[in-house]
Amino acid sequence: MIGRVSLVGAGPGDPELLTIKAGNRLCAADLVLYDALISPEILELCRHAQRFPVGKRAGRKSIEQRTIEKLMIRAAQRGKRVVRLKAGDPFVLGRGGEEALALAEAGIACEVIPGLSSAIAAPELIGVPVTHRGLSSAFMVLSGHAASAYEPILSSLKPAAATLVVLMGVGQREAIARTLIASGWQPSTPAAAIAWASTPKQWSQTGTLQTLAAFDVPADAPAVLVIGAVVDVAAQLQPQAEKEQRHVHG
Amino acid sequence: MIGRVSLVGAGPGDPELLTIKAGNRLCAADLVLYDALISPEILELCRHAQRFPVGKRAGRKSIEQRTIEKLMIRAAQRGKRVVRLKAGDPFVLGRGGEEALALAEAGIACEVIPGLSSAIAAPELIGVPVTHRGLSSAFMVLSGHAASAYEPILSSLKPAAATLVVLMGVGQREAIARTLIASGWQPSTPAAAIAWASTPKQWSQTGTLQTLAAFDVPADAPAVLVIGAVVDVAAQLQPQAEKEQRHVHG
Repeated sequence: MIGRVSLVGAGPGDPELLTIKAGNRLCAADLVLYDALISPEILELCRHAQRFPVGKRAGRKSIEQRTIEKLMIRAAQRGKRVVRLKAGDPFVLGRGGEEALALAEAGIACEVIPGLSSAIAAPELIGVPVTHRGLSSAFMVLSGHAASAYEPILSSLKPAAATLVVLMGVGQREAIARTLIASGWQPSTPAAAIAWASTPKQWSQTGTLQTLAAFDVPADAPAVLVIGAVVDVAAQLQPQAEKEQRHVHG
Repeated sequence: MIGRVSLVGAGPGDPELLTIKAGNRLCAADLVLYDALISPEILELCRHAQRFPVGKRAGRKSIEQRTIEKLMIRAAQRGKRVVRLKAGDPFVLGRGGEEALALAEAGIACEVIPGLSSAIAAPELIGVPVTHRGLSSAFMVLSGHAASAYEPILSSLKPAAATLVVLMGVGQREAIARTLIASGWQPSTPAAAIAWASTPKQWSQTGTLQTLAAFDVPADAPAVLVIGAVVDVAAQLQPQAEKEQRHVHG
């Protein structure tokens, strides 16, 4: 008897932003292997399952990728319904493709259930559309983890040709802003950072490429950076009353 | 008594791929204004609401954007719970930002509920991760509707620097492939087209930039194009038995 593995995207954090299918799989799971960024409210949905954290966080000792794959394969071979729960979407900078390949090689049935990626949802939840008529008809999502990966991409893109969304780049935000300005982007280009989107501790700040380095991002927050004219839409979406209040107090 | 408007993303089509929040809003709605691409199964969830199609499809007469905005505003002013249901995600090439601004100007409370964008989910559902270690750490999503919009972007991007995902570009696929090859992309770069992802009529085809023009895309299908080395991951994910069968019959 062979079980199966569901690679499930948990979305940005709010349990209501899980897909219905993800919620169903969590309720029916025997074993849930989950990432470090999964919210406690989501884990509550699978409280009857065996739950095991396998997350990786910068600077901490973590379980090796190969070990995670072995855990999934062994549990499935024992007939378990396994959910591999990943923050955001499993196929957006989350090594979901590698895990799916490891399962395929082991002959284990695997389904992939997309989740809301914070690349789109985090800006959206503060009122920033990644595309907007007249401002941007394209967006680029990239990893800000390593300069060797992002520098060739950023320096090849025509300034302001697309909205930029940088994941895992909060620690590199000064270097990213410098690279873009050196490539011809205006220092006054609007920029935003968003952390813990959709959760009670949601945090965000807006400014420009020039001020990005000085953003007061909470320590240890997995912030999303958004760079481009679309960032200004958020201010236009604020209710009039709020704007007036800011005018008085600002 | 003022109602409110929820701008809701319906995801790629499968009702199980709605978020739990989207499902809740649909069940509680008084009025649902929906796009042409919303599946009948999803509309079934709001069968007790007044439902009104406001979709735009290429080549057909359609309701003007301003009229959609007026309908939402008037219904909210009459105290109705209005859902504006959009295919995919409301803020990805869907004019959701414009609709949110119109509501803000009219003083109507508006919430935005993200949905799964087919830019990520459609490739994912055929086994193509938009990013994959060693193949791509970035992806660019753009509209293929007008050459004047996509040409400057495509020709500025370094060949193969990122996975490309083109929405609304199926009719322009020959021109898009030509632009990329002229910009230095290898004609052998893998490419895929996916239509009606997650629904019973899901269709897909894979090939290369050179064969993209000749893809047999069903007429009137809102296909997503994916271009880049990540497309090859899908074939590696096929169960071994299926691969062997293809080998025998191919």
